[in-house]
Amino acid sequence: MTIDELCINTIRFLAVDAVQQANSGHPGTPLGAAPMAYVLWDRFLRHNPSEPKWPDRDRFILSPGHASAMLYALLHLTGYDLSLDEIKRFRQWGSKTPGHPEFELTPGVETTTGPLGQGFANGVGMAIAERWLAQNYNRPGYEIINHHTYAMVSDGDIQEGIASEAASLAGTLRLGKIIYLYDDNDISIEGKTNIAFAENVAQRFQAYGWHVIGPIDGMDTSGVESAIRMAKEETIRPSLIICRTIIGYGSPNKAGTAAAHGEPLGEEEVRLTKERLGWPYKEPFTIPEEALAHFRQALERGRSWQERWQATMDEYRRAYPKEAKQLEIDLRGELPRRWDSNLASLFNTAHKPIATREASGQVMNAIVQRVHSFVGGSADLAPSTKTLLKDHGHYGFEEYSANNIHFGVREHAMGGIANGMSLHGGIIPYTGTFLIFYDYMRPPVRLAALMGIRVIFIFTHDSVGLGEDGPTHQPIEQLMGLRVVPNLVTIRPADATETVEAWKAALERAHGPTALVLSRQKLPVLDRTVLAAASGLQRGGYVLWEAKTPPDVILIGTGSEVHIALEAAKLLQDKGVGARVVSLPSWELFDEQPLAYREEVLPRNIRARVSIEAATPLGWERYVGLEGTAIGVPHFGASAPGKVIYEQFGLTAQHVADAALKLLHR
Amino acid sequence: MTIDELCINTIRFLAVDAVQQANSGHPGTPLGAAPMAYVLWDRFLRHNPSEPKWPDRDRFILSPGHASAMLYALLHLTGYDLSLDEIKRFRQWGSKTPGHPEFELTPGVETTTGPLGQGFANGVGMAIAERWLAQNYNRPGYEIINHHTYAMVSDGDIQEGIASEAASLAGTLRLGKIIYLYDDNDISIEGKTNIAFAENVAQRFQAYGWHVIGPIDGMDTSGVESAIRMAKEETIRPSLIICRTIIGYGSPNKAGTAAAHGEPLGEEEVRLTKERLGWPYKEPFTIPEEALAHFRQALERGRSWQERWQATMDEYRRAYPKEAKQLEIDLRGELPRRWDSNLASLFNTAHKPIATREASGQVMNAIVQRVHSFVGGSADLAPSTKTLLKDHGHYGFEEYSANNIHFGVREHAMGGIANGMSLHGGIIPYTGTFLIFYDYMRPPVRLAALMGIRVIFIFTHDSVGLGEDGPTHQPIEQLMGLRVVPNLVTIRPADATETVEAWKAALERAHGPTALVLSRQKLPVLDRTVLAAASGLQRGGYVLWEAKTPPDVILIGTGSEVHIALEAAKLLQDKGVGARVVSLPSWELFDEQPLAYREEVLPRNIRARVSIEAATPLGWERYVGLEGTAIGVPHFGASAPGKVIYEQFGLTAQHVADAALKLLHR
Repeated sequence: MTIDELCINTIRFLAVDAVQQANSGHPGTPLGAAPMAYVLWDRFLRHNPSEPKWPDRDRFILSPGHASAMLYALLHLTGYDLSLDEIKRFRQWGSKTPGHPEFELTPGVETTTGPLGQGFANGVGMAIAERWLAQNYNRPGYEIINHHTYAMVSDGDIQEGIASEAASLAGTLRLGKIIYLYDDNDISIEGKTNIAFAENVAQRFQAYGWHVIGPIDGMDTSGVESAIRMAKEETIRPSLIICRTIIGYGSPNKAGTAAAHGEPLGEEEVRLTKERLGWPYKEPFTIPEEALAHFRQALERGRSWQERWQATMDEYRRAYPKEAKQLEIDLRGELPRRWDSNLASLFNTAHKPIATREASGQVMNAIVQRVHSFVGGSADLAPSTKTLLKDHGHYGFEEYSANNIHFGVREHAMGGIANGMSLHGGIIPYTGTFLIFYDYMRPPVRLAALMGIRVIFIFTHDSVGLGEDGPTHQPIEQLMGLRVVPNLVTIRPADATETVEAWKAALERAHGPTALVLSRQKLPVLDRTVLAAASGLQRGGYVLWEAKTPPDVILIGTGSEVHIALEAAKLLQDKGVGARVVSLPSWELFDEQPLAYREEVLPRNIRARVSIEAATPLGWERYVGLEGTAIGVPHFGASAPGKVIYEQFGLTAQHVADAALKLLHR
Repeated sequence: MTIDELCINTIRFLAVDAVQQANSGHPGTPLGAAPMAYVLWDRFLRHNPSEPKWPDRDRFILSPGHASAMLYALLHLTGYDLSLDEIKRFRQWGSKTPGHPEFELTPGVETTTGPLGQGFANGVGMAIAERWLAQNYNRPGYEIINHHTYAMVSDGDIQEGIASEAASLAGTLRLGKIIYLYDDNDISIEGKTNIAFAENVAQRFQAYGWHVIGPIDGMDTSGVESAIRMAKEETIRPSLIICRTIIGYGSPNKAGTAAAHGEPLGEEEVRLTKERLGWPYKEPFTIPEEALAHFRQALERGRSWQERWQATMDEYRRAYPKEAKQLEIDLRGELPRRWDSNLASLFNTAHKPIATREASGQVMNAIVQRVHSFVGGSADLAPSTKTLLKDHGHYGFEEYSANNIHFGVREHAMGGIANGMSLHGGIIPYTGTFLIFYDYMRPPVRLAALMGIRVIFIFTHDSVGLGEDGPTHQPIEQLMGLRVVPNLVTIRPADATETVEAWKAALERAHGPTALVLSRQKLPVLDRTVLAAASGLQRGGYVLWEAKTPPDVILIGTGSEVHIALEAAKLLQDKGVGARVVSLPSWELFDEQPLAYREEVLPRNIRARVSIEAATPLGWERYVGLEGTAIGVPHFGASAPGKVIYEQFGLTAQHVADAALKLLHR
């Protein structure tokens, strides 16, 4: 057995043994794809296992996250802080080796993968970030940022729409430092891939503007090596190397079949596979010393790469102190001191009515003046979402230092790419689309929350108030759909002043994504000289106004409906009923407050509560309870001018006041 | 002006005037795409405006639904029951001409479009249904089912991932009767399409196995005509005709720019456009008599086509009475008499524990023995979702009468295609995937609900109970995410017997979709000799069991957690606390019940309530109120065996019992 074969089999059987021990997992891909993964990690991947966060490392993504055992094997073998014990505890409670790779949990895992196609898009985002940083910071003689984005992708990834969207954009943007190895094993869970997938993948990727190599024999190390070399030589187009492999390679009874995919081989079959591949070790989890020594050379290589980089960086800091300082701030994900000092003066009471999407656009343009790394775009809706950063160029087309990205009509890829940008580091990304199209990008929003990364998802046209476009475009369940995602903070500001606060909260939330939910229609700017300060938003909810008499009833609203609640309170006042108006722009921030504060805002003894929100009322029982009334839209919308819809759907101050009176039996 | 030119301009200006009058809408596409739409409708589309539901009509889909005004013009002009007054009330409250076309609201609208890419996938579903029916029912000399599926698709449609997925599957399945006209106008909302979309669309679709024609001049009627003729001659591959057009054609100041896309031209520009195109009529909404007469020939043509078809159908009924009867049942969407009579005996108390996904698979296999038109599949997860119909073949590959469809790893297209199958008629479609991947197919699930069509969405692996695959695969917010969709019924059965009832409810719900939420893990079969009957599921929720003493506390569960609630009730009984256990498999069905019934199950005076569900607790306040306790998973999951996770997350009978005791201050 050559050293290459020995190392490849070491990866294979660490993975196979881990799956067998867990009695759960996916042995098929590691057996087939170990050779290509080995060649990449052994001969190309510039990384430093002792410093997994070294900024100029190559990125590696395992898009078919179900092959996690293979990645854990590589991480352990090359010297990351992941012990063999952890591999033995594969898929067990509290281990660092979960069923699918998880960002931050395991050193060296660049992104959380498993839902297919996401890793593919993440890589495109990482490559965008790499090029943005390179273009902004590299100087002649100082290639501070210069690395590749590698991924392994599977048949499933290639079939998912998000991969199509991301590939088309990567081709358009000419991201030549993307190199993806496609593990083309002809097998999917229901059988041969051609039962559902007979397309010509090479031709399709050529059509996207990719440089396609192969199909090659993905299990021939020298073939894979020269293919990756060719891919590195191509600097304009992203590269896809089509690697034919055999799923479950070596397994006498399961190789080349779906049976090898998603369940342990079984002890007997493991034994037969080891025999077939000439693996002499009876003991599971055996790592031959020679193999380990070979793999662990990665530590020395990595240290030396990083040292050389550090030397260049030190020189760069002397030659370009301002740039170096800025780059370091960006890479740490910090906000500059007093980054928000120019926001306070944007809107005041005298301001004319303004849609929160429009206010948001103004805030964003103020932010980018201070926050250099603020980069993003919209899925072909920038004029409507107001997400354009003026005078900050258009990314791509020889202008890779620009802050505006045109994602095209590709919401799903936009989300996955923004996640990749955030994961790469050096950028604070945002995305923009209509709230209804959150439905097109649910998986990446969820993954951002799961990974705890900072991405700001802007959703405008937030209710039936958008008007004539009708029910296909009017969100009903999307707002509550954001609130139920763990670790996502959703903010629906009531006016321009709350929009400023919402942006502050979003940018300062470094370890999780934020969704900003904004109106299409104009809204008055709340008069803070008579109402509570907008900074109350930072606590999620606050008493905006109340009658002089002690409150008989609490009216709770969010976003555009806060104005209706205020008007209703005044109607009630005219009838001698004391109402309190609570603005509740963010449930998550409010629920995080100490009980005492929440009691202050919503005292438990006041059970006469009416909520109003132009969305599904389901969920509002959390604040109004079984005795209160939740006014909302428990059905689909309609096509008509927004104001007409509000009237017809009973989203009116009169309706709120009547509901309050009914609760009070008056 | 030739009659063609006159007719084309009539379409254009009806649309432009409608947009102008509404002061809202999209004039650009109608101006550019009217010629191709006209050629298709005038020379090819086999339809009968007086009977819009004639089963063998060609289908036409306007995938860019924002061009609705053009479709309404065509419908009015060719004689559908859509008056000129309705066109004048474009986008107004209560009109039949909403901002985006809505199925059932407007005669002749085959599907609700607007969210881009959906119409593209719907058409693939319609073509699947057409071929399935043809293969099952046509007999030599009797081509009862033989029609094309036409669509107009836009740059936006082509960019969306769902279109990629659907196109790849259509190519694989060789759906040769699909003919799509691609309105390639080089413009999207943010500017020229090539800022984000530089791919070679022709090459990409060839790679999918499509027959690509063009690019042709999409505004040249004879060119479009011969292209469609060529497309009809191709019977194996689906056809894409790439039609170069000019958005806003004729508008002197806006043609060829994004400004023509999404807002009215303005009165002056309308005047200039009419002048430029030689339209002499000052009055808006003018329809020249000659044009109307020409368009209305569609009525006579349509009647004659349908009469000939009816004659063949009558003969067929004589020659093949059994087939004809079955076909008519299928087309009406009826269920055969006693269709469910073989379900009752499937599971009894003596049955060993069985996962609800597995029980569902057995129910499905029983259903298809009676319900011939039950057709569907999974997104490459059939062995896990248990959705395979045994001995019912695999659709495609010369076996187009089969009931099992391999959708590939394409959840989004699967949803859109299933919608298309249902819209076509003659089929009761189902889809299958893991609940977590509902996130990949939210838009079509929503559209099925909005359209009120019968599609059964099966979601298995419904909680953290799926175990080792970990948080990327464990749904938390998806279950509540289903419940908040208006007009969608979600059912999460507790065991095999409730699964039978769930399937009954789903199939009998003819005017809306149903989501079935099923466990991966085995669950005991509830002993109905001591518990209430499973038929209680039909009311959404029911008292499953209660202590002999009057209830002090109500425990509410769904799905796998019903068993935990039952166990907790027994723990409480041992402590002398009377508990009632409510199984609440479907909130929607329960909330539809009369107040009296709901009061019977959840009496308002019993406020000590504990719910348990292995998902986000947000929303459960609807039943437990401010005083109750909702036990759930308010965070992401973990990778470990399912039972370990249940313990670690406190999804245990002891925790439920403790929570109940705490509420009762004992």
